[in-house]
Amino acid sequence: MQELKTYTEQLEREIEQLDLPQSPANLYDPLRYFMSIGGKRMRPILTLLGTQLFGKNPSSALHAALSVEVFHNFTLIHDDIMDEAPLRRNKETVHKKWNLSIAILSGDVLFVKAYQLLAMQEHRHLPELLDLFNKTAIEVCEGQQLDMDFEKRNDVSIPEYIEMIRLKTSVLLGCALEMGAIIADASATDRKNLYEFGQHLGIAFQIQDDILDLYADPDKFGKQVGGDVIADKKTLLKLKAEELADPIQREVLRQLEKETDHTAKVKHTRELYTLMGVREACEAEMKEHYDFAMQSLQAIHVNLDDKAPLITLADYLMNREH
Amino acid sequence: MQELKTYTEQLEREIEQLDLPQSPANLYDPLRYFMSIGGKRMRPILTLLGTQLFGKNPSSALHAALSVEVFHNFTLIHDDIMDEAPLRRNKETVHKKWNLSIAILSGDVLFVKAYQLLAMQEHRHLPELLDLFNKTAIEVCEGQQLDMDFEKRNDVSIPEYIEMIRLKTSVLLGCALEMGAIIADASATDRKNLYEFGQHLGIAFQIQDDILDLYADPDKFGKQVGGDVIADKKTLLKLKAEELADPIQREVLRQLEKETDHTAKVKHTRELYTLMGVREACEAEMKEHYDFAMQSLQAIHVNLDDKAPLITLADYLMNREH
Repeated sequence: MQELKTYTEQLEREIEQLDLPQSPANLYDPLRYFMSIGGKRMRPILTLLGTQLFGKNPSSALHAALSVEVFHNFTLIHDDIMDEAPLRRNKETVHKKWNLSIAILSGDVLFVKAYQLLAMQEHRHLPELLDLFNKTAIEVCEGQQLDMDFEKRNDVSIPEYIEMIRLKTSVLLGCALEMGAIIADASATDRKNLYEFGQHLGIAFQIQDDILDLYADPDKFGKQVGGDVIADKKTLLKLKAEELADPIQREVLRQLEKETDHTAKVKHTRELYTLMGVREACEAEMKEHYDFAMQSLQAIHVNLDDKAPLITLADYLMNREH
Repeated sequence: MQELKTYTEQLEREIEQLDLPQSPANLYDPLRYFMSIGGKRMRPILTLLGTQLFGKNPSSALHAALSVEVFHNFTLIHDDIMDEAPLRRNKETVHKKWNLSIAILSGDVLFVKAYQLLAMQEHRHLPELLDLFNKTAIEVCEGQQLDMDFEKRNDVSIPEYIEMIRLKTSVLLGCALEMGAIIADASATDRKNLYEFGQHLGIAFQIQDDILDLYADPDKFGKQVGGDVIADKKTLLKLKAEELADPIQREVLRQLEKETDHTAKVKHTRELYTLMGVREACEAEMKEHYDFAMQSLQAIHVNLDDKAPLITLADYLMNREH
């Protein structure tokens, strides 16, 4: 974990030093603000670890790593507009603190910045890096569109939901890692396996997110437990509950949706889900993706010792309580 | 002009065949719609002409040309949101026909598409193409931000205004042409001169736009003459009028801003501007940029004959009536 901490600190310094002009202030102040409010910086760390895995100096992947983090922040700025979110990491979102136009445009310019950073990598890697990055960026947009479409549909299947989270969040983890592998000149098979590791770890991570919303320890969670239930958000828990419910339980679920006492709604939903085995079903789905991720990692042709940081990171992500 | 027509037709066919998936429909239908509502396709033609100028086959620049056109359309989709524009080329804008979120996200995905097209060019040109394209994309965003900032300021100077239109619209013409030159392996000096030709032609074109708004022949203009005056838009005419006005004329300008009869407002503004020599002053400014553009073109090391299509295009743009 010490290694991960060193990487995070290095990345924070680099992000602070990102070359953002002073003027126009309404374009760049929001970006300085948003990039500084943090996050786990998990994606750029994956790129550095992806390069290190194949015995190359992770510094050689620094610009690609920053590119992924900058791209991720661009998507957050635009997603916050679409979700009408007032807060991100307990700070005002850009469209709230400034306005809609500024949030759109500063997001756009941040997106270009991601490409500028990517273009700073060694030229011989550019075509492969660009192809992967472009494909991933398009998938992330498609995932966000599906997420918005799903909120208006009542017939979303579990495979559709998994596909949506794969696109919206998991492909970027695969991309971050594979970029590191490209820069380390890894073989096509190793690259593909590392991508799969990231992608399926991402899906497991996202399912974990859905489970934690209802089953986290309130003292450690850092936000309201049951927020998704209160908002009637389509999560894997909700879809699994619909699938597992008998007619009577389905009727109770309908009643619970109308419950206006939030504390009661969360408590009773949790009790019913537990009774129905919803948590176990979701954990089984999560474990499937986690296992697939670990098998993909195992298949990569490097020593087990060199895989240790990625295994540590995967363990950390899967055993978090918030 | 026959040559330009052939290029436009070829580009229209290519744009029709752009590889846009069917699903998610809410992401890609708006793009099919928007890309099909046309425009002059002036920017991609510039890229093709830029390659042809140096004796290379313009087809080799086709993907870069499409990339510029796709980027331009991305900026229009997002600008229309920021400007709250209901119509573009007499058709509903994306945010009106669909909604805000869809306009943001489909714009984003179109932006990635521009990079995908660019990445299809020969790999050895990618670093230079990317550097130019990224720099230009950032400048276009900066120009849009300045435009929005200026609408809230009362002390915008003429040099500031020219700098804004340079960034918002003219650098993309320079970029389109220089991309063609990069693909044709032109020398650094020729590339720079071709960029300057495009940039200053763009500024002249934009000033022409401002002049036409008030002085176009209503029968040929295709939209309401005086639209900028009615909206009190900060154009070069307005800034020049402020500069040239004596105290009494300045008072009349203030009164005219309050005039609610649109026909009278346009008529009296035009009369006052003519009296003050506003049109001539703007035409002089336009001619300065046009002349600089032509000098830059002249300096390029190719036969005069080979410059003919660019000269024809420049003449056409400068003598248009709409």
